[in-house]
Formats: sequence, structure tokens, C-alpha cells
Amino acid sequence: MKRLTIFVAVVAALAGIVTITLPAPGQADGEAVAPFVTEIPDGYRDWSWISSAHEAGSLNSLGAVLGNDVAIKAYREGKLPFPDGAIIAALHYHYVASDENNKVFGQAQSFVPGAPSNVQFMVKDSKKYAATGGWGFGHFQDGKHGDAVFMKSCFPCHEKAKGSDLVFTHYAP
Amino acid sequence: MKRLTIFVAVVAALAGIVTITLPAPGQADGEAVAPFVTEIPDGYRDWSWISSAHEAGSLNSLGAVLGNDVAIKAYREGKLPFPDGAIIAALHYHYVASDENNKVFGQAQSFVPGAPSNVQFMVKDSKKYAATGGWGFGHFQDGKHGDAVFMKSCFPCHEKAKGSDLVFTHYAP
Repeated sequence: MKRLTIFVAVVAALAGIVTITLPAPGQADGEAVAPFVTEIPDGYRDWSWISSAHEAGSLNSLGAVLGNDVAIKAYREGKLPFPDGAIIAALHYHYVASDENNKVFGQAQSFVPGAPSNVQFMVKDSKKYAATGGWGFGHFQDGKHGDAVFMKSCFPCHEKAKGSDLVFTHYAP
Repeated sequence: MKRLTIFVAVVAALAGIVTITLPAPGQADGEAVAPFVTEIPDGYRDWSWISSAHEAGSLNSLGAVLGNDVAIKAYREGKLPFPDGAIIAALHYHYVASDENNKVFGQAQSFVPGAPSNVQFMVKDSKKYAATGGWGFGHFQDGKHGDAVFMKSCFPCHEKAKGSDLVFTHYAP
């Protein structure tokens, strides 16, 4: 009786493992697919500059938008939609006055990036992210990605920029 | 007498040419050396992003500061003074409100680069630009460099940033 109990327990445990590791419908190669970007793209800090923006109000940020080679090429050629492989990074910092610069200018006029607040990404993969317009959205704070509930807020907002393939930022010449 | 006059005139003319084409002391290969940067460095628009800044007041600009590989390496390693070969580019644009973004946000908060106003460079060459702290300064508007009188204003201002090798911009992490 004891042996049978152990056998049943082992079978149940194995079944559990199998259930856990089986890929969900639509997943490729058993890899878990989140509906958003969960890993920071390699080398993004070296990418070319697309533009910068200051958001006042509660965001109060100064940001730079960078693009990998695929994104930069598409921007410069004015090609829409962006091709698969394009990645756009938005680096956001607290918007702070530069006392150092103001001293040189002799007046309060200079605003620069303070501490980093977050880094956001848009990764174009029309198959993987078909449900969100072909773009995977990513939001990272201190290296950790936003949770599933927060990440659901990206697409509805970016969808308003349908005319530019969900991308708000224009290329600064 | 006529022949002698012509001979003297030819000699004088040749002497004049020689005087004009002889390099000034300190010039290499007879090339004219301006005390500032007269050519836009190749490929600067692809360089990595160092930081951005908004200057309010009469400048009313939104700018991005980019660096070539030598400059970026020095920034990341915190090495001062910058080594020869380092080039820093400052791309300035008119600071404008983005009606497009504000519509999405539902409030006036977004400021982006408008039309380009100028591009400025700092080129490190401790020998060529010894008289201006080892940096050659460049200012280009519509592809044309600033005149000699205007260019004299760069160094006295940048000299105030002696502690950071005449460079105002800090690297945004």
C-alpha cells in the first residue's frame, strides 16, 4: 500500500511538471511569450539618436529616443510601417535645472537630465506581437520590467498614432 | 629698360605667390589652419547620444549632444582631459510645443525639436588648437561655419568649465 502511494505521488508530481512546462497554445518551441518586452535589448545605449522631448506636468521628464540600425534606416527613408527587427528606445530622466550651466549663462535657463526614471522600448515583430499592432512594448525601471497590468496601458495609447505606425516620435534632422 | 621692368614685375609677382603660399609658422604641409573648426565632421549624426538639454530664454532651444567613439569612451571611463581625436557634437533645434502629442496626452505638456537652428562641434587636437585649450570649436548654420569674430566667443565661455576640460555636458547614464 505504501509503495502504491509513493508511485501515485511520483506520477502526480511528474504530471504536474509536464503540465507546467507544456507551452501554451500559440507559443513557439515551448518558449513563454509575454505580450510585452521582458528583456532589455542589448547595446541600446550606443544606438543613434532619433529625437529628444520634454514632457512637463506630472511626468516632468527629459528624454532621448534612440533607434537600432533597422529603425534608423526606416526613419531616414520615411518607410512605414517599420519593418520587423526595428527597435526604438526611449530613455527618460527627471527634468532638472542645471545650476552649473546657469552660473555660466548668468541666468536661470538651462534644463538637463537628472536621475534616470525609466527606459521604454518598442520592438517590431509583426508575428510575435500581432495583438498589439506588431509592436512589443517594454518599460524598465531599475532594470525590472513593468507588470502585466501596467503593460496593458501602452498599446491603447500608442494606437492613437496609427498614422505613423503607433510611433509618436519624429526623426530630428 | 622695358625688359628689366617686366623681369622685376615677374620676380615681384612670384615672390608674392611664394609669400602667399608659404605656410605660417606651426602649419603643417602648407595647409591653412583656422583657429576654429571649418568642416562638419563626417557621420556625426550616427554618433552615440551623450545627453540632451533645453535652454530657455533667448536661445529657446532643445538640443542633443552626441559623441564619436573616442569621446564616448572617455566619457564612460571618466577620463579627463579628453584625448586627441575626441569630437563632441551639439545639435540645436527650436524648442516647440507638440500639438500632436498634447492631443494624445489630453493636456499641453509635450515639447519637441522644431526646425534645426545650428550644429556645434568641439574637436580635440591639443597641438592644432593649443591656443584654445586643445579644443577646436565649430558652429554651423545651414552648413556654413560661423565667421572669425563670432568664433572668438566660444573659448572664453567654455573656459569657465575648466574642471571638466571645457566641456559643459555630462553623460546621461
